[in-house]
Amino acid sequence: MNDRVRHVEKITLKHGAGGRAMRTLIEEIFLNGVPTDDHDCIGLQAMDDGAAIRVGDRWLVLTTDSHVVQPPFFPGGDIGRLAVAGTVNDLAMMGATEVLALACGVILEEGFNRDDLVRVQKSMAETSREAGARIVTGDTKVMGRGELDGIVINTTGVAFTDSVVRDCSLRPGDVIVITGTIGDHGLAVMAERHGLQLAGELCSDVAPINALVRAALVAGAGGVVAMKDPTRGGLASALHEMAAKSGVGVVLEELKVPLTAAVRAAAELLGIDPLQVANEGKAVLGVRAEAVEAVLAALRSHPLGRAAAAVGVAVDERPGSVILDTGFGKRLLSEVEGEPLPRIC
Amino acid sequence: MNDRVRHVEKITLKHGAGGRAMRTLIEEIFLNGVPTDDHDCIGLQAMDDGAAIRVGDRWLVLTTDSHVVQPPFFPGGDIGRLAVAGTVNDLAMMGATEVLALACGVILEEGFNRDDLVRVQKSMAETSREAGARIVTGDTKVMGRGELDGIVINTTGVAFTDSVVRDCSLRPGDVIVITGTIGDHGLAVMAERHGLQLAGELCSDVAPINALVRAALVAGAGGVVAMKDPTRGGLASALHEMAAKSGVGVVLEELKVPLTAAVRAAAELLGIDPLQVANEGKAVLGVRAEAVEAVLAALRSHPLGRAAAAVGVAVDERPGSVILDTGFGKRLLSEVEGEPLPRIC
Repeated sequence: MNDRVRHVEKITLKHGAGGRAMRTLIEEIFLNGVPTDDHDCIGLQAMDDGAAIRVGDRWLVLTTDSHVVQPPFFPGGDIGRLAVAGTVNDLAMMGATEVLALACGVILEEGFNRDDLVRVQKSMAETSREAGARIVTGDTKVMGRGELDGIVINTTGVAFTDSVVRDCSLRPGDVIVITGTIGDHGLAVMAERHGLQLAGELCSDVAPINALVRAALVAGAGGVVAMKDPTRGGLASALHEMAAKSGVGVVLEELKVPLTAAVRAAAELLGIDPLQVANEGKAVLGVRAEAVEAVLAALRSHPLGRAAAAVGVAVDERPGSVILDTGFGKRLLSEVEGEPLPRIC
Repeated sequence: MNDRVRHVEKITLKHGAGGRAMRTLIEEIFLNGVPTDDHDCIGLQAMDDGAAIRVGDRWLVLTTDSHVVQPPFFPGGDIGRLAVAGTVNDLAMMGATEVLALACGVILEEGFNRDDLVRVQKSMAETSREAGARIVTGDTKVMGRGELDGIVINTTGVAFTDSVVRDCSLRPGDVIVITGTIGDHGLAVMAERHGLQLAGELCSDVAPINALVRAALVAGAGGVVAMKDPTRGGLASALHEMAAKSGVGVVLEELKVPLTAAVRAAAELLGIDPLQVANEGKAVLGVRAEAVEAVLAALRSHPLGRAAAAVGVAVDERPGSVILDTGFGKRLLSEVEGEPLPRIC
């Protein structure tokens, strides 16, 4: 008889929360036995916002995301808008700002209200139009009562681009630009879920930003060299990943990071760092110094980029680290395990 | 005060079961406000196994499926193999038998065993190799305990093809070919779920059949004019859909439909019609009469097509109907609302 109790490792919520725990899980499990990336395929190993496969003289970009947000309706959006915007934005982060097609898999809990489904579908159709995208194929599954909490939507997108923008191409001297305020999405969902008084002031930023990104790429004329959307894990996770993959340090100037008054108040009240909270209509850009002015001007002239700001710089010290300059001093911004609350996207 | 109780319509299990109820839901809800198909896009309206978009002189085929099978491990396969094979086969059903790339979204319940996830991932990697496919991008989400039953995997596939095969192109006189025995997958899952004695003999047919389909297309030299995989709702649903979309009747000769002894016994015991049970490694082909011999020979010379058989014919009577010839007489095979058991795929 074996009297040792075998330790069975279990998946925990942090494995899905966009931080270090999730990345480790993916590296340890999902990268096993899959073909390695090569010069014709930016694939799983790259762990970028999507994959890119060379097709003739272009790249086909492919990206997928499951959306499990709870509640499915929140101030500023709903799971349908999120499902379309999330995938459109991941394509854009790879440099593919014109969406060829979207595929959409919906899973419903038995007993889900038909009216709510109609509302979600309408939101998906509207957001698709807004993004110049089209849902061309789908799948519907229903799980029993109690087997699924409400509704889950997976959205996959495909798009062509002539040149791919990676999240690993920062060089010392590149300027870090954020396209607007941060923390809005995650805090709006948290407030809604917990019925906080602040809910009325907080509003998710969920939006397709492919046109905004296109404007920046055009204005930058090759000067936008790295992109990532700060979703799960927030700006902190996005910068950590960009810094680590690029082999540079990133100095983030905290006082320059745009925040709405509502987010600032909610974050203080809840004791949550907005740098670690998910955004769904923002991008982090790495921009060559000489292109920054043009890129900022292009962003700010777009309705979704009014609050765009240069918030930091890539440096050659402490590669892989994010150095937070608080205005009073500098400290290392530690990488979080994950988002403070699960199911925010 | 309004004392009328408003009737709130709810989603039921049959809305995900692959039959008439599901098709109606998709038509009534998901087709609203989406762009109509045109000569450059076979999209949502077509409700085919996938979408096809013209890119230059080729077609890009895109298809997505969420997999919610319960239990995730069953005789003959598991949810990982199913997730890859299901999507590879949907691409093949559109005529795209060489997979460019797969995207994979995994959703886990908190507490899911890490070892089981490793097993599922290994199965996905192996099945991908078998299909000549590669998973290039993915997404991982975790839902709380009780918010999801175990594991769900969405898989999306992209592939190019020079010519698309539709499910709506049957003409009277075309022969209906099935690539092997039917009912194996659904009955194996049912037996496993309910702990039936028969479980040992039943075995899912889940397999990627793109190479088998390619052999048939090549041998048919243009003579394979329609394809559909008989998954949810089984052979009955697939034939109903092909007949309705093509505007023909289909006569199905029941005695010619290949069945294993185990499926026959289990179906009789459970009072289930194997024609209505899901398959995950089979295709229904509509073949011009002059090409049937060559197509059957090609199928039967492939390990996954040994039991291929001509089982019916398209006729110009009763368009949209399936006429079952039992060997003792003919009757209309009514379209089912859905699969007898949910979550078989």
